[in-house]
Amino acid sequence: MTTQFIPPEWAFEFHGHHCPFMPIGYRMGKLAMEKLELNEREKDHGFFVFPELGEGHPQTCMMDGIQVATGATYGKVLMAKTFYGKLAVTFYHPKKGAVRYSLKNEFVDEMGKHEFFAYRKRGVEPSGIPAEVTNDLIQWVYNQPDDAIYKIEPKPDFTYTPVKGSFNKTKCSICGEYVFDRYLRMKDGQPVCIPCSGYEKTVKIER
Amino acid sequence: MTTQFIPPEWAFEFHGHHCPFMPIGYRMGKLAMEKLELNEREKDHGFFVFPELGEGHPQTCMMDGIQVATGATYGKVLMAKTFYGKLAVTFYHPKKGAVRYSLKNEFVDEMGKHEFFAYRKRGVEPSGIPAEVTNDLIQWVYNQPDDAIYKIEPKPDFTYTPVKGSFNKTKCSICGEYVFDRYLRMKDGQPVCIPCSGYEKTVKIER
Repeated sequence: MTTQFIPPEWAFEFHGHHCPFMPIGYRMGKLAMEKLELNEREKDHGFFVFPELGEGHPQTCMMDGIQVATGATYGKVLMAKTFYGKLAVTFYHPKKGAVRYSLKNEFVDEMGKHEFFAYRKRGVEPSGIPAEVTNDLIQWVYNQPDDAIYKIEPKPDFTYTPVKGSFNKTKCSICGEYVFDRYLRMKDGQPVCIPCSGYEKTVKIER
Repeated sequence: MTTQFIPPEWAFEFHGHHCPFMPIGYRMGKLAMEKLELNEREKDHGFFVFPELGEGHPQTCMMDGIQVATGATYGKVLMAKTFYGKLAVTFYHPKKGAVRYSLKNEFVDEMGKHEFFAYRKRGVEPSGIPAEVTNDLIQWVYNQPDDAIYKIEPKPDFTYTPVKGSFNKTKCSICGEYVFDRYLRMKDGQPVCIPCSGYEKTVKIER
């Protein structure tokens, strides 16, 4: 594997521990950018990533590697989980199109035999697993060719338009705090924030 | 302001551009950790952050600074927006309790007068704003005392239990891809993934 797919040291510092999934996501992000002919990380707000991951399962750490590789960060509202519980990610750039990368079943099966997962299944957190066990797995992943790990699907029909942005905000008539207008609700004829409204708390997910 | 609240250089690299909000979030995260007596960034999965931000409005960049400061990253499923459209964040550690930090209205008003926002409101992306304009605002923020920026509320009753994790996964009977069991649906008597099921796509938000 070429070194361009090895995360920089600060990526491990950002992530907080050593594990195989942050680097798997980093490499996936770099490969997807290459596939879409994107030459640099996203500086602003123009590249969107939809991981099909959820909660309550392992391997979500991929998303931190993807944030680092692509610049499509959660803070810039460029990354949003679909809550499908799948090891797949769609990358979309309005000028370049979309591609979906997923982890091949065979790769997941093979990786799962590693001692690292015996620790994880006993409830040992990644930072508590002996470094040689973790590093051995990370190195094993580095040694796999790209096409042993990733399934690639072009997504020619995929499209996404972010919601129209606005700077307008209004104070909640109950708590007095600023609320961006999109999220204001009306109660007894006055604008209020969602917590003060007592209204429902579900959101539509992206796709 | 003490230098401990100035983000490391790699935080700007991670974020992708210079703006005032990443540093505002970084400082908020560091202050919240101090308040909760947390001495180090979260390595694994034990510190939870609920930003009350949403989409389609500015200032979400705070969340990247918070990820960097706290280690409560999106990839480790430790950060989840509430979609309230508010400039506030609740930090929760099971052994330390919870605290909510929000930006004071007066600070937001004062900051909004800066030339940086004239560019943003004309649609100029942060990376396209002259560096001296951006750096002037970042420096202005650094110069504000903590209590001019942040409102702090203890949240003694706040509690959160992450969903129980499981490594169990099953192949979707239609597409053949692995799905973590929590996300499988049944269709015609067979387990399928959500996209293959055609079923609804909303999720309950955290609080």
